[in-house]
Amino acid sequence: MVHGERISVSTKGFSDIKDVTGPVQMVIKNSGAHNGLVHVFVAGSTASVSTIEFEPALVEDMREQLEDFASSKMRSRHSETWGDDNGFSHIRATFMGPGVTVPFQDGKLILGTWQQIVLLDHDNRPRARELFVQVIGE
Amino acid sequence: MVHGERISVSTKGFSDIKDVTGPVQMVIKNSGAHNGLVHVFVAGSTASVSTIEFEPALVEDMREQLEDFASSKMRSRHSETWGDDNGFSHIRATFMGPGVTVPFQDGKLILGTWQQIVLLDHDNRPRARELFVQVIGE
Amino acid sequence: MVHGERISVSTKGFSDIKDVTGPVQMVIKNSGAHNGLVHVFVAGSTASVSTIEFEPALVEDMREQLEDFASSKMRSRHSETWGDDNGFSHIRATFMGPGVTVPFQDGKLILGTWQQIVLLDHDNRPRARELFVQVIGE
Repeated sequence: MVHGERISVSTKGFSDIKDVTGPVQMVIKNSGAHNGLVHVFVAGSTASVSTIEFEPALVEDMREQLEDFASSKMRSRHSETWGDDNGFSHIRATFMGPGVTVPFQDGKLILGTWQQIVLLDHDNRPRARELFVQVIGE
Repeated sequence: MVHGERISVSTKGFSDIKDVTGPVQMVIKNSGAHNGLVHVFVAGSTASVSTIEFEPALVEDMREQLEDFASSKMRSRHSETWGDDNGFSHIRATFMGPGVTVPFQDGKLILGTWQQIVLLDHDNRPRARELFVQVIGE
Repeated sequence: MVHGERISVSTKGFSDIKDVTGPVQMVIKNSGAHNGLVHVFVAGSTASVSTIEFEPALVEDMREQLEDFASSKMRSRHSETWGDDNGFSHIRATFMGPGVTVPFQDGKLILGTWQQIVLLDHDNRPRARELFVQVIGE
């Protein structure tokens, strides 16, 4: 059985990190599936989806790490060619990947106690993002 | 419903990046599935699959970032032990992961307008790669 | 068809890398599925799952790369706030992601000859980890 829904998330950019665990759990509930996989995907080439312990100190650490990895001030051929100044956003996104898959059992996400599903928006401006959540199960 | 096909891709190595979106879309069409997930996987431990805005400037930025992250000239125990000089390729591959999953709806990949599915071949020589594309849907 | 099992793995931390290919292949066999996808997921926010050529020299290179990327001696707001000294573990885990998906055909994992599925435990102490292996196929 396949069940898909879109989730809207407002973001501020520069690797703004948003907890989407609740909405994803709701899509599983809506699907009626008991066991399977849920895949959370962001359409667009400047954002990522992963899991993290969603607490403010770590969220700030993660954003600093991404800044160290690919600085928002880095020169890039992409930014110079297209003038949109977000080469760093693309690089972060491609490196981390656009989605995450999480198993569920008895209708509940299998996650650690301090593990949440998050959208990371690496772009250099606020965005209205749409996640596509696909449930495959029975 | 499960439907799998192999896609052949010739690569030049050193994180050569190839757009495979068209062939992946074709596998979904061949499957006859309307809604589901497609998983694109590269067998081998020196390549990755992700998404990117596939335009030449950004492709070059991404390759430079990978060179900064794990230089093709780095010393590695792997290269010294086995003499194949591709320790950096393995490290890039394990970090980025060997596959990507993308949802589809009404038979069409859900991707951003400027988002393509790509193979990144990190090895240090040309390769004839085989991607395995598995469709799960209905 | 959906079939899930848990696999227990003892780890030493600091990006200890464990080959779990054999147990994952066994779960596919137990499922009775011939073709599909297997998803290997670690519950918890300080570990990752990926693939690697599992040989000792490369495993050591990979651990060194992770140490360069996010040092176990790095200062982090997370460690300072919670006193558990594992901010680096979280950062490594979120960057690499908590799971990997691998296709199988005729009941056998599609992997390169020198490609194994591994758990990477980034935490700063020994752990008894539980992987959740979900098979979706027919």
